[in-house]
Amino acid sequence: MEKIRIAICGYGNLGRGIESEIKKSGDMDFVAIFTRREPNTLDTKSDTPVISINEINEWKDKVDVMIMCGGSATDLPEQVPMVAKSFNTVDSFDTHAKIPEYFQKVNDSAMLENHTSLISGGWDPGMFSLMRLYANSILSNGKTYTFWGKGVSQGHSDAIRRIEGVKDARQYTIPIEEAMNKVRNGENPILTTGEKHLRECFVVAEEGADKQRIENEIKTMPNYFDEYQTTVHFISEEELKLNHSKMSHGGFVIHSGETGEENKHIIEYSLKLDSNPEFTASVLLALARATYRMNKIGQYGAKTIFDVPPAFLSEKSAEELRKELL
Amino acid sequence: MEKIRIAICGYGNLGRGIESEIKKSGDMDFVAIFTRREPNTLDTKSDTPVISINEINEWKDKVDVMIMCGGSATDLPEQVPMVAKSFNTVDSFDTHAKIPEYFQKVNDSAMLENHTSLISGGWDPGMFSLMRLYANSILSNGKTYTFWGKGVSQGHSDAIRRIEGVKDARQYTIPIEEAMNKVRNGENPILTTGEKHLRECFVVAEEGADKQRIENEIKTMPNYFDEYQTTVHFISEEELKLNHSKMSHGGFVIHSGETGEENKHIIEYSLKLDSNPEFTASVLLALARATYRMNKIGQYGAKTIFDVPPAFLSEKSAEELRKELL
Repeated sequence: MEKIRIAICGYGNLGRGIESEIKKSGDMDFVAIFTRREPNTLDTKSDTPVISINEINEWKDKVDVMIMCGGSATDLPEQVPMVAKSFNTVDSFDTHAKIPEYFQKVNDSAMLENHTSLISGGWDPGMFSLMRLYANSILSNGKTYTFWGKGVSQGHSDAIRRIEGVKDARQYTIPIEEAMNKVRNGENPILTTGEKHLRECFVVAEEGADKQRIENEIKTMPNYFDEYQTTVHFISEEELKLNHSKMSHGGFVIHSGETGEENKHIIEYSLKLDSNPEFTASVLLALARATYRMNKIGQYGAKTIFDVPPAFLSEKSAEELRKELL
Repeated sequence: MEKIRIAICGYGNLGRGIESEIKKSGDMDFVAIFTRREPNTLDTKSDTPVISINEINEWKDKVDVMIMCGGSATDLPEQVPMVAKSFNTVDSFDTHAKIPEYFQKVNDSAMLENHTSLISGGWDPGMFSLMRLYANSILSNGKTYTFWGKGVSQGHSDAIRRIEGVKDARQYTIPIEEAMNKVRNGENPILTTGEKHLRECFVVAEEGADKQRIENEIKTMPNYFDEYQTTVHFISEEELKLNHSKMSHGGFVIHSGETGEENKHIIEYSLKLDSNPEFTASVLLALARATYRMNKIGQYGAKTIFDVPPAFLSEKSAEELRKELL
């Protein structure tokens, strides 16, 4: 069997996740790591060649799917429309509000030379989106709630780090159990953002910094914290490293719907992840397999997980799937 | 917009579920109910015409998708290969062991005149199968567990009713919380059937019947009960009607997998359903929409939920889905 030749573009947490997880796919070869940095400065964990992104087009016929591992803020919007012209791509673009515009740009580029680009893969957007879609398609007379956490929010941690006197910080988003239970009871509550999630902050202060002021600045920070119940713990640098360095995350999609005469139904999907980047990488690898197959049957242009026939994600044959998993 | 013309074949619990839920689909017309019974003996709740199954072929050009609502034991294996020749069909065939053979037969028939037949839809097989597939495709280095219940098992209730001295009975399958928690903790336990589920029986005995003997016969019944922890409650006919007439059901698919260096991940999907037939009907209706669309783009033959691009299930456009649910 011919293997799918996978390359990555960008070598941060997500890229390392791909490097670690691709070994589990018997049908894939890991052929190249593209980077903006000086290739020989990268300390990779595989013998896959590291190539400057400037040479990416020379690999046009040597890569089946390019997994784009940059960030959503600036990397992906710039890189993917460029790369999608010459390669099938998979990415995890997650700026929800900008997805329609991004989709269009990537689609235009991918269509030029009959490539396929799967955008916004991962778990949210990604698996959670799928669960929202399935639940709404089955029980249209219902309501879907998404809760995130417990997990680290990079954006909120960064916001705390920008406060004067803060040396380091880690912020956890925590779903409020009481709100989830109302949803699970089929009460269809109306919940403000602050009623769905708590924010818990672990902060390392600079020596001599005014902790009271820092705590106050966190709790009143507009958009990030002011609408939430927020707790702040000051801890030592050692404790932060020891207890708060895992990139765990997760969340819940709960749909409550009705049929017939007041028959209630609850559909719940949850993820509890020790490593956000490694799980995201695992989803992207399955999507890379599907993207390769969609391209083979002539499904060109930008696609999302909504377009992927589930069987395309699996290494198993259709017969095996029907026999073992149906 | 042209509406999808839906008919059903069979008017039991599932057929009534379709009749009740199809109103929620703005893109569907409910055009006919086919039955083996004398059509005018059916007490339906809609003004959809009731037609003898003998006249089904006269409706060839008036129905887009036929939802087959018969039972898996004898109805579907006989009817679907016959009907699939002239109609697109959707069914809920759930005899797991016979799916490969059934798939082949339905496929051969559907291919004759370019029809599409979605087999084994519903929630298990169906949504639960999908969850097993997604979880295994993402975390191939893992293990999937399916728990059913709490819910009524028709087969087990029937088995109790066949015991001498039993007037009526209802059997609930109940997942064992302790076993589920082991799975949720990522312990990957090896569980026998009896370690996964309890069986709780509510029995109405004939007057003067020997309850001790009945209880003993239930608990020692091979295959059905002997390997399980079983409890038996004797109750009155009134109580059975009052408290045990809902067709509630549900269950859990829990996948535990690992990435990197001992990072554990738990994916859990659960359903809590007040009405098994109405929920199943809701899934089949979404699948009918997808089947219609797959047929339109030339995807002929037997299909399963594994082949259905998720977006095909929704009434919403691809643009709306990307904007609202991705």
